This record gives sequence, structure tokens and C-alpha cells, in this order.
Amino acid sequence: MTDRLKKQIEFIMEVDKLKSILRQSLTFDGTRRENDAEHSWHLAMMAMVLQEYAAVPVDLSRVLQMAIVHDLIEIYAGDTFAYDARANLDKERREQEAADRLFSMLPNDQGAAYRSLWEEFDAAQTPDAIFAACLDRLQPLLANHATNGHTWRLTPEPIKKEQVYRRNAPMQEGAPALWELVEQIIRDSMDKGYLSE
Amino acid sequence: MTDRLKKQIEFIMEVDKLKSILRQSLTFDGTRRENDAEHSWHLAMMAMVLQEYAAVPVDLSRVLQMAIVHDLIEIYAGDTFAYDARANLDKERREQEAADRLFSMLPNDQGAAYRSLWEEFDAAQTPDAIFAACLDRLQPLLANHATNGHTWRLTPEPIKKEQVYRRNAPMQEGAPALWELVEQIIRDSMDKGYLSE
Repeated sequence: MTDRLKKQIEFIMEVDKLKSILRQSLTFDGTRRENDAEHSWHLAMMAMVLQEYAAVPVDLSRVLQMAIVHDLIEIYAGDTFAYDARANLDKERREQEAADRLFSMLPNDQGAAYRSLWEEFDAAQTPDAIFAACLDRLQPLLANHATNGHTWRLTPEPIKKEQVYRRNAPMQEGAPALWELVEQIIRDSMDKGYLSE
Repeated sequence: MTDRLKKQIEFIMEVDKLKSILRQSLTFDGTRRENDAEHSWHLAMMAMVLQEYAAVPVDLSRVLQMAIVHDLIEIYAGDTFAYDARANLDKERREQEAADRLFSMLPNDQGAAYRSLWEEFDAAQTPDAIFAACLDRLQPLLANHATNGHTWRLTPEPIKKEQVYRRNAPMQEGAPALWELVEQIIRDSMDKGYLSE
């Protein structure tokens, strides 16, 4: 086995740990917390099905690759709950350190390529990254709506409507047709008492 | 919301069930059975990292899409253990019925496209599908090697070396450099007593 293949296989074995990184969101049947690996798969599936709603045409292959790598650094940095203000303070430092460790396992060319893909996703400035970010907002919103607003009630103060609007705001620009869906879900969540004013 | 988007969102909610379809393989830490959604993510990750080993250059976007949809029909057909001869007898009929049900949830164009992608994967005749099939063999082989040959001991008679060679044979043609890895893993599994002659 070449040194290159050895590194690649070790990376593939290491990233299996993504299956053990739990998110705050539940699976849609509400029975358990979702993990990062299945969440990443779900995002990729959504990218395929919903690509036509991207405001600017996207390169599906790049969006799929972003979905697949976007949470890898959480193997070392842990999942940071979107509505946990304190955990978000040192999120960037923790994630950069995790990226140093994780992507250096790969041959240089691949490590650099995937790190760059993750950083592009994280910055959410290019059309591909904006669309991927929209999906990364929509997936937990659908999960929350399906599970009686589960993560909106995990914080000391229940999450308010305005916070959910703000969290999902990238969709207004990145995928306007999906923004209408977001508004509908938020309205329905208000009607059902999952969210407060 | 248009009828088209409504169908797409219903499909996205329905396929969340893939996270509850358990395979016989364990996660690499050996703590629990792996589910189809995280397995599909792992395959997509492997396609990115290992694409250079495909015997014939592949279209990464198509291989990723195959990895993402390849097990969807198991939501209704269930996971069929590769070494369970009886369950494999009616596998095709069960999976075709599941495909009828699942892909008809989508708008016609998408349902037809994803069904065709799944059928291409299943037939394993095109370069993209052959490579995806190689990864679908390699991933559980790595899992088995990491978990003391777990699935090789689930059958009434322990699985023999020759059966594992046969199961992984597509790699000889589809990704020769990975076939050397397969041989090495099988030899090491023999040495460690995970597999018998």
C-alpha cells in the first residue's frame, strides 16, 4: 500500500467518528438525537432535490461535497448549538484547531482542497456556499417543526420567532422560493405554540 | 407553496426514515449498528477521497448522487444482509416495489432520474456504478476489520475467506489499487482469526 493510500484509508476510518457527534436536533420521528453523519447525508439529499431553488445556479457536485465535509471538524470541535451564545464565542478558534488536525491527516492536495471547501462553506459568500448554508438552516427547521419545536425549548429562555427568522435569513437571498416555505413553517409553529412572539 | 415543492418537501421528510434502517455492520468503534443514512454519507466521503483509484475515470457528481440514493429503497424493503442467501432470494422484487412507492412521491422528472440512478447503481455495469459498488464493498470490509470481523460471524456457519473474496471481487476490475488493500485486509483478518479458510 502506498503512503498516499494509507493516509486516505486512515482518514476514512477516522471520520467514521462523525457518526457519534450528536446534534441538538432529533430525527423527524422524535425518537433520538440526530448525528452529524446522517445530517450531512440529509443535506446532500436535499441539495439534489432542491437545487432548482437556488437564486443563482449552483454547481451540484461542489454543493454535495460541501454537504459531505461541512461538519467534519466537529469530530474534534464538537457540535455547537446555533442558539447557544456562549458556545459560539470560541467556536471559530475550536473549529480552526480541529481543521488543522483533521485535514492534515490527508495527502496535502486533498487536505488543502477539503479545508478550502469547508472554509468556503463556513464563509457563505459564494453561490454554492450560500445554497449549502440555506439547506443547513432548512433541515433543522423541518426537524423542529416535525418534533414540536424540540430545540427551540432547550435554551434557558425559549427561542422567539425573531431569532428563528434571523437564523434562517440567508434563505431570503439564497433561495427565495424556500424562504416562503420558511415563513409558512414559522407561522404554523406559532399557531401550534412551538414558538413564542 | 407549489405542488412541486410540496412533493419535494414531503419526500425529504419521508427519507429521514433512512436514519432508522439498521445494517448488520457496526460503526468502526464497535458500539452500535450503523444505519443506512450514515453509511451512505460514508460512501460519498469515500468517493471523494478515493476517486483517483477508479480503473476508468468517473464523474464524481454522479458517483456522489448514487451513494446518496443507493439505499433509499431500503426504507420500505429493509436492509438485506449480503451473506443471507434466503433474504437475497426475493430482494429484487421487494426493492422494485419499494422503488415504485418511494420515487413516485417526487415530481415525475426527479422520481424518474433518481430511480434510474439507483437502477444504474444496482446493475453495476457503467464505470460510475462499478466504482460506487466497489466503495459499497470496501466500506463494510473496513468496518468488519475494525470490529473483529463482526458480520462474518452472524451467519449460522461463519463466513469463509472465499466468500469475502467473492463479495469484493468487483474491486479487481473497478479499482485494482484498492483490490490490493482488500487482499491485505483479508490476509490480516485470517491472521487474527476473524475469518476461516
